[in-house]
Amino acid sequence: MGRGDATRGAILDEAERLASRVGLAGLTIGSLATQTSLSKSGLFAHFGSKEALQLEVLEHTTERFTAEVVRPALRAPRGEPRLRALVENWLAWGANPGGCLLVASAFELDDQPGPVRERLVRDQRDWLDTIAMIVSGGITEGHFRPDVDPRQFAHDLEGVILAYHLTRRLLDDADADRRARRSLEALLAAARP
Amino acid sequence: MGRGDATRGAILDEAERLASRVGLAGLTIGSLATQTSLSKSGLFAHFGSKEALQLEVLEHTTERFTAEVVRPALRAPRGEPRLRALVENWLAWGANPGGCLLVASAFELDDQPGPVRERLVRDQRDWLDTIAMIVSGGITEGHFRPDVDPRQFAHDLEGVILAYHLTRRLLDDADADRRARRSLEALLAAARP
Repeated sequence: MGRGDATRGAILDEAERLASRVGLAGLTIGSLATQTSLSKSGLFAHFGSKEALQLEVLEHTTERFTAEVVRPALRAPRGEPRLRALVENWLAWGANPGGCLLVASAFELDDQPGPVRERLVRDQRDWLDTIAMIVSGGITEGHFRPDVDPRQFAHDLEGVILAYHLTRRLLDDADADRRARRSLEALLAAARP
Repeated sequence: MGRGDATRGAILDEAERLASRVGLAGLTIGSLATQTSLSKSGLFAHFGSKEALQLEVLEHTTERFTAEVVRPALRAPRGEPRLRALVENWLAWGANPGGCLLVASAFELDDQPGPVRERLVRDQRDWLDTIAMIVSGGITEGHFRPDVDPRQFAHDLEGVILAYHLTRRLLDDADADRRARRSLEALLAAARP
């Protein structure tokens, strides 16, 4: 990684932190300049436009999400253990200060058409595909019944994750982790042979 | 209701529509003036400040939510029928153009301290209390097992609702209603004696 890449990565880290606090719509070249003490003209040279910056921040966050949540889970044994690893990694991810930018943006930008929304839709579909694929693996392994619908399971697990986000971040409820794990156990129990 | 109240109500309806589209943070006296073609000074005279406007819009929305979702459900027979009525009313509510301002604001403002966030926390707690109370009624009626935890049920049902919001509004998925109803049936099945 060259020096330019390292600088870009550091700026994107700052941009992600800023967007987690003020929302992706509040992430502008101007607000990022203030946050990083870099010049607006320098940031324009780096990113070109507000929209390009937002897209790069989303891509940066998704890469981190894949590296911290998805990839380590895929190293766990197939089926239920892999699903549990995925959820544990997500809970750790969602507990980051600022919460999950991907979740917050999904609710923020759901009715603002354009490339940023399209990117969020694609990422969300990829995420649901990943969960469904792991659930299918659990059926093959005999951990789950053959009539379990992997897409419905993915949808229900997404609900567990969204409820965790709200319980922890809006309600600041110390029980958020325990509640999310109980919800997961109920989903698993209902899927077992 | 006097003429002043009717005007105020009409302005708050517009403000709610605007906030549903641009977020509660984007709802300012200025943006509302543009939307309604009323003067900024007139709106200032009505509301006093951006924050007071945001609080009034939340209160206005919560009142409508109570009238359209909660109160009609409370007229259904206690227990499972009342819970089903609540969910059906919520699905109709969440399908409104612009979606649910209360859900969107909960994700938007979760880390922006102040009276608006406090109001959202209070409303969210009231909503979870309402669900838990209806579930308790279902235990008394014998529709649900005595060891069902009404607070956990409320939490899980909130997950179903949030997943519905995302599936319908971000993914624009025609299956959103069907998925939400399947999730509800699974929750009910797991709670039955």
